[in-house]
Amino acid sequence: MKYLEKVNCPADLKGLKFGQMNALAAEMRDFLVQSVARTGGHLASNLGVVELSIALHYCLNSPVDKLIWDVGHQCYPHKILTGRREQFDTLRQFGGMSGFIKSAESPHDTFDVGHSSTSLSVAHGMAVSRDLLGQSHKVAAVIGDGAMGSGLALEALNNIGRSSSDILVVLNDNQMSISENVGALAGYLNEMRTKPAYISVKRDVKNILKNIPIVGKYTESFLNQAKTKLKYLLLPGVWFEELGFRYYGPVDGHNLRHLVEILTSLQRVRGPVFLHVLTQKGKGYAPAERESLKFHGISPFCAKTGEVAEAPESTSYTDIFAEKIVEIGRKNGKVAAITAAMPTGTGLANFKAHFPRRFFDVGIAESHAVTFAAGMAKSGLRPVVAIYSTFLQRAYDQIIHDVCIQSLPVVFILDRAGLVAADGETHQGVFDLSYLLHMPNMTVMSPRSGAELAQMLDFALELGTPVAIRYAKEEISKIYLDAHKPLELGKWEILEQGQKIAILALGSMVDKAANVYKKLRYFGHDPTLINARFAKPLNPEITADLADYEYIFTMEENVLAGGFGQAVAAALSQSPKIHHFALPDEFLPQGTRAEIFAHLGLDADGMTEKILEILAHG
Amino acid sequence: MKYLEKVNCPADLKGLKFGQMNALAAEMRDFLVQSVARTGGHLASNLGVVELSIALHYCLNSPVDKLIWDVGHQCYPHKILTGRREQFDTLRQFGGMSGFIKSAESPHDTFDVGHSSTSLSVAHGMAVSRDLLGQSHKVAAVIGDGAMGSGLALEALNNIGRSSSDILVVLNDNQMSISENVGALAGYLNEMRTKPAYISVKRDVKNILKNIPIVGKYTESFLNQAKTKLKYLLLPGVWFEELGFRYYGPVDGHNLRHLVEILTSLQRVRGPVFLHVLTQKGKGYAPAERESLKFHGISPFCAKTGEVAEAPESTSYTDIFAEKIVEIGRKNGKVAAITAAMPTGTGLANFKAHFPRRFFDVGIAESHAVTFAAGMAKSGLRPVVAIYSTFLQRAYDQIIHDVCIQSLPVVFILDRAGLVAADGETHQGVFDLSYLLHMPNMTVMSPRSGAELAQMLDFALELGTPVAIRYAKEEISKIYLDAHKPLELGKWEILEQGQKIAILALGSMVDKAANVYKKLRYFGHDPTLINARFAKPLNPEITADLADYEYIFTMEENVLAGGFGQAVAAALSQSPKIHHFALPDEFLPQGTRAEIFAHLGLDADGMTEKILEILAHG
Repeated sequence: MKYLEKVNCPADLKGLKFGQMNALAAEMRDFLVQSVARTGGHLASNLGVVELSIALHYCLNSPVDKLIWDVGHQCYPHKILTGRREQFDTLRQFGGMSGFIKSAESPHDTFDVGHSSTSLSVAHGMAVSRDLLGQSHKVAAVIGDGAMGSGLALEALNNIGRSSSDILVVLNDNQMSISENVGALAGYLNEMRTKPAYISVKRDVKNILKNIPIVGKYTESFLNQAKTKLKYLLLPGVWFEELGFRYYGPVDGHNLRHLVEILTSLQRVRGPVFLHVLTQKGKGYAPAERESLKFHGISPFCAKTGEVAEAPESTSYTDIFAEKIVEIGRKNGKVAAITAAMPTGTGLANFKAHFPRRFFDVGIAESHAVTFAAGMAKSGLRPVVAIYSTFLQRAYDQIIHDVCIQSLPVVFILDRAGLVAADGETHQGVFDLSYLLHMPNMTVMSPRSGAELAQMLDFALELGTPVAIRYAKEEISKIYLDAHKPLELGKWEILEQGQKIAILALGSMVDKAANVYKKLRYFGHDPTLINARFAKPLNPEITADLADYEYIFTMEENVLAGGFGQAVAAALSQSPKIHHFALPDEFLPQGTRAEIFAHLGLDADGMTEKILEILAHG
Repeated sequence: MKYLEKVNCPADLKGLKFGQMNALAAEMRDFLVQSVARTGGHLASNLGVVELSIALHYCLNSPVDKLIWDVGHQCYPHKILTGRREQFDTLRQFGGMSGFIKSAESPHDTFDVGHSSTSLSVAHGMAVSRDLLGQSHKVAAVIGDGAMGSGLALEALNNIGRSSSDILVVLNDNQMSISENVGALAGYLNEMRTKPAYISVKRDVKNILKNIPIVGKYTESFLNQAKTKLKYLLLPGVWFEELGFRYYGPVDGHNLRHLVEILTSLQRVRGPVFLHVLTQKGKGYAPAERESLKFHGISPFCAKTGEVAEAPESTSYTDIFAEKIVEIGRKNGKVAAITAAMPTGTGLANFKAHFPRRFFDVGIAESHAVTFAAGMAKSGLRPVVAIYSTFLQRAYDQIIHDVCIQSLPVVFILDRAGLVAADGETHQGVFDLSYLLHMPNMTVMSPRSGAELAQMLDFALELGTPVAIRYAKEEISKIYLDAHKPLELGKWEILEQGQKIAILALGSMVDKAANVYKKLRYFGHDPTLINARFAKPLNPEITADLADYEYIFTMEENVLAGGFGQAVAAALSQSPKIHHFALPDEFLPQGTRAEIFAHLGLDADGMTEKILEILAHG
């Protein structure tokens, strides 16, 4: 480790020669493999950007210059180069170093991130700030080709392109999201990849213009052929150029000298600049080069062989979903499955293998995934959309506006709902109950066991209205397995009948609740234990029964506000003590505000009448 | 009205000759102007698509073929052609015909819409359904150039382009969203607009290829010039072609014969096809041609002169915001304002006039608007993001992930919060309290008067953390104007001190509450009347005081679930009766699930301990 220990901040790079930087790159790769082999973490994407990270920190002056990493799971080389090498033993652990960019960790971490495709918008904001505040530093964003297909990144491209701000966008093109890339843009990038680099080619086009004939007819296919040839000859990156960028590339992302040369020369170019860099996921570590998906995010493994050390995980909800959705697909030819760049993570890879024509990976495009599903549902298919809880946040409006208003039969599968462990703040799936429960026409369930998940899937597809099923990846209950009764809309499952105390648990919390139940029994109490099953709707009869209990405890793996417990409390508050005037759980039609308020009894007269009634009979 | 009364369904068009269809178009324009002059509604965009609507219905076989309108406020000609002419007198009224596409109204309305940019995703879903179900009808989407810049539409383009589905995308290019269009894509379309139409041009390019010289050096500026010339000569629509579409156009959208010819010939082209149609907003009605923004959505007006008949509206919250934000901008040079295609609607046009460099209209790109603002806030600016309540739904994830996690000082202005009258289901701003109140670090306010809105803006900019201010456009309170006390975080304003009964109203509901208060006094009651001001955080002291009341009534213009009233109820439930175990109102770091549960006291031991404590002391 000749160089690694000497580089503790970007300034330490500046004196190095190319040969020394290449040696440093090799040491960094070795360190990354050894370190992630111990702790687990993201590996393949980090091995792919070692040279790029060195080159960027060599050419920029961070933290004065702003370097913005997209997603952030490729930030390990950056963390090494900015003085955090020694914290790698605590990577992704409770109280330890984050696996993502965290501005609380270092001034070199310019903007917290975890979800994909934010970097261009952030860079635009930072460039505008610089310009308005009269500063002169550089702003550079590094974004992957997978992230580029997201609506957020595309909106940002469209906005940056027409601005005159000096922004460098580095496209880290490794031809992958987590899984294989999809979308027309990915195909376009791939075409450019396979052509020679044009960066230094300045061809004479004067004669071309002179010789364009004005008449003559050729077949369309010839025209298309000619177009394609000319396009790549004359207009590399035309797609980005049309959006207002100066396009450069593609360049080899593992050639430090080339990277430094072009980054240096680009510092003189004004306005939005797009640099297309080709990298390889897993570069330099044979097992990760071979299997970049396996090494995207990995548990501790043997550095020598690449084999994952620990025993295979026990069955997860994901596995059960993967199996059940194939069974459903077999029975019902109208069922189609949609994911957003997560075929493996969601378990849909299995469905894809069986029913390739009915499987759709839309890439990192959650909003499109949902409205696309809505279009399917409106036309007779039965789409199942599997997206992690935290990423489905990107489709909040589409769920309301395109699915719920028309009450279309779209089934949402929210894997990784609740705490997600090592990924931290940005990935916790702890808001979905709050963002789903206030949507009219939506049904929300959470299974306590694998068998119940299978039941719920069948039930959801029978229902014919919007349904969400949320679960954490693991921690499947193995208790009360014989107790499962058939599902009825909004009906809870009473696991133990007691008195005075009622415990209502949802999904992942049922196991914990059963544990609590045993302990309370030990202390002489006799609680009722309920598996709630439905967070919406809530069964009115059982809710009424609850009123007879002296103590009610609700348990959920979601934030309190707007979640399951508050919904139960609201359903219970038949008492006159507190009454809420608010809009009902339905979509409200057009009309003047006064008309609608009057219609709902929410004008002053209506509310007064209601209050007087409560005061009289309360 | 020679033809208008004879056309009651698309089939009635089929026998008409071009001359007759042109006469029909003129009659439809006349009908639209007369009708909207009486009822108010969207006019300019509808006048722009009269010929396009006729041509599409002439060439397609709706409702077997699926015609999908984006946004839907340009659907009036479509409604006329599909048998709803006689319902125009009830347009946008309570119980009357919708101003948007509504599938409940007609089988020709294929998909409900109101928000922009959904049509391409819907069309993709419908085309996939058709293919999987073995059907053979056509699927066509009509989308405006403004809507094309939205992330949802761009995600859809990227996905449709790589599919082989037969989908026709008609770009209705009128160079406007509601206001002027922005973004690089708009500039690109404009360039194409100004070049001759290439549709029938098949130039000989054989000799070009032969004559490309391989050596020689010319200046970059010459190269660029040559590129531009070649580009439009050889590659019209290359941006769309690179995304996998066959591009045709631009064609004159007011020439029925051309439209029918090209639509007919395109029916033979397989795969995704992009037809670029040029239209003029307000076409054929001079006042609307001159002032298309005024005639986008308009109140009843004089058909002859175009003058709006009714008196100008009284001062609105929008007006007060427009004025106050300029005052703030004058005092603080770091304040920047951002809107998403609504400079006039939000009142920011005024800020733009005063501080053009600090004003940013990002187009219909709400997600980018928020992350762009986050980038600004992280770099020292103080961004104010003004987006209607219903459209901010599109940025739900960005508010959590890019603003709240880092607790950045972004001020959100949610105009049109609550009921929005004539636009109906798709535009009701009735979910924002529910989607904002569960976000950690967020402060949410709602003003009851114009003076309070001004106070709140000052307060929000002083706070230095994420803040949302929500208000309906109109209905500003004129009562208790002398009562305004300075704002304190989370503190309510007691307007009348009474006993036993407490009425807590938020924002728009305060006026109604004051009315209710008077009525209750008349009936001999003595309520306390509170202007809540803050929906989050809730002041703990006053909340505790509330416990002493016998009756509490909360009032809000938002759905019940996850809203203000439930938050108050949750804060009040200090009683042992019901206790919620859920995750706290903060962003949770990395760690194993077990570690975090234990840390929060949400493991079985922690919960048992808490329950025993409650049982012992409750």
